[in-house]
Amino acid sequence: MQALYVENGRVHYRTDHPAPSVAEDQSLIRVSLAGICSTDLEIVKGYAGFEGVLGHEFVGVVEEGPDEFRGRRVVGTINLGCRTCSICLGQGPEHCPHRTVLGIIGHDGAFADYLALPVANLLPVPDEVPDHSAVFVEPLAAAIRIREQVMVSPSDRTAVIGPGRLGMLAGLVLALGGTQVVMLGRREESLELPRRMRLEARLAADCKDSSFDLVVEATGNRGGLGEALRLVKPLGTLVMKSTYAEPADVDLTKLVVGELSVIGSRCGPFAPSLRMLARGEIDTAPLVEAEYALGNGLEALDHAARPGVRKILLRP
Amino acid sequence: MQALYVENGRVHYRTDHPAPSVAEDQSLIRVSLAGICSTDLEIVKGYAGFEGVLGHEFVGVVEEGPDEFRGRRVVGTINLGCRTCSICLGQGPEHCPHRTVLGIIGHDGAFADYLALPVANLLPVPDEVPDHSAVFVEPLAAAIRIREQVMVSPSDRTAVIGPGRLGMLAGLVLALGGTQVVMLGRREESLELPRRMRLEARLAADCKDSSFDLVVEATGNRGGLGEALRLVKPLGTLVMKSTYAEPADVDLTKLVVGELSVIGSRCGPFAPSLRMLARGEIDTAPLVEAEYALGNGLEALDHAARPGVRKILLRP
Repeated sequence: MQALYVENGRVHYRTDHPAPSVAEDQSLIRVSLAGICSTDLEIVKGYAGFEGVLGHEFVGVVEEGPDEFRGRRVVGTINLGCRTCSICLGQGPEHCPHRTVLGIIGHDGAFADYLALPVANLLPVPDEVPDHSAVFVEPLAAAIRIREQVMVSPSDRTAVIGPGRLGMLAGLVLALGGTQVVMLGRREESLELPRRMRLEARLAADCKDSSFDLVVEATGNRGGLGEALRLVKPLGTLVMKSTYAEPADVDLTKLVVGELSVIGSRCGPFAPSLRMLARGEIDTAPLVEAEYALGNGLEALDHAARPGVRKILLRP
Repeated sequence: MQALYVENGRVHYRTDHPAPSVAEDQSLIRVSLAGICSTDLEIVKGYAGFEGVLGHEFVGVVEEGPDEFRGRRVVGTINLGCRTCSICLGQGPEHCPHRTVLGIIGHDGAFADYLALPVANLLPVPDEVPDHSAVFVEPLAAAIRIREQVMVSPSDRTAVIGPGRLGMLAGLVLALGGTQVVMLGRREESLELPRRMRLEARLAADCKDSSFDLVVEATGNRGGLGEALRLVKPLGTLVMKSTYAEPADVDLTKLVVGELSVIGSRCGPFAPSLRMLARGEIDTAPLVEAEYALGNGLEALDHAARPGVRKILLRP
């Protein structure tokens, strides 16, 4: 089958990659559409030391699996826990120390014709959510995760630093219920998309106030944390979404003196994400930059790495 | 009067320092006993850029002030807010952007014969709390602050990195109610005091597990955060107590991937601190290293700066 395979920090497009082996509790899924995430780009740069098929955002159709799933459109959560440790049995597989993660840690991913996932990871996609929307379930869930971790009050003043692929979803999710959201970018061009989607947007350098109750750091680079610390008010909350290879070099005095809360935030819940898309609470169309055939996957990854580029989709 | 005065990163002992001017709403307090904190040592190194009389931990006697306070032993909270901004009127003066802070920001401190504080900042000391115990009210309050910010469960597994002056108080406060506390130090000698006070203590380098629900970082140096990140478990909480001048250089990947909460923590509530001391919940005697006359204050500061030294007290 076709696959984008990463090894030793290089990606290869293969047409002769073996189809995934399907364990007894797993389903075989034909990938309909996949999305490129900044984490994929970091993995290519060496983050997480992954070797295998890249990709974790997808929608597909079950080809092999239980009767109730076969032939259905599905999305799939990306963490595969051991199912025996106290963390798996308690909170779920997201923090299992033995977990594999689709396209990130020890499990072949979605930039391929097929992938295999446990049936427990699958959620059927409602008919009213088309593929080009369903492919956003995973990153939208990561944005929704913020609302699982922090109470976002309708009266809060919030900011998102980094109006990129994940930052835009975070801003749209924060704005629900009337919360004020300011999207902050480094370049004037990066403010167009948030403004088009009716979110206030400003250049970060022009934003001098330190009065935000909640700041989401979604820049994807090491400069974001310092900026976020500057913007958040005393006793405020800072949600960190960026993972990157280099260490941060940052003055943490304000964290202590201002008694800030800094919350790390990663994968989120799929069911609310599907409900949001089914109800049309978020329009994903403006978030798509381009779609590539999987055969042009290397070109697609290059495109996704350019500054200010929205979601790049891959179609096997 | 006598005073330890800091300017341009140097401390001077003066005998001719003018007594503090006392504003209408303030009291004049004769200092009975003061304590040296790591923040004082950081201020001497340049932290906060303070110029004035050093010192913020004290117990004293009111010489000028309202009838109900005159002649009474008091301790005093250290933040002086503007009393007009929304933060002062809401949460109190601790995060007022216009605040001064006793011996730290724009207000002469306690390493002197006299200090001045608003009456609103004073709390009478119960008879059963002697001066050498009352002088711990401020740092003990800072330790108690952790329990205002984070629920410390009796079943939590907690660690304190840095068994120093503040770290010991944090450990003793966490241990109340049966919570397991492991005090982690860099040197074998630093483990003696916690063990003497019946807290489990180990070398940080020997502690390989990452299973702590709550880790308090009280090392006072930039290496502490990385160590704390190593020890805390996924979804766990890290409380940061250290303020220091240099930027931290740290890999924050685990913060995001492990979805940790990092909570900055500073000044705490005095009334609970006094109640703890009055009920004898904490024995402060083993925490004292030595007492100096204020005239030997420079020697006392040198002593306090040596590794592993407990509380140094100053008596005017």
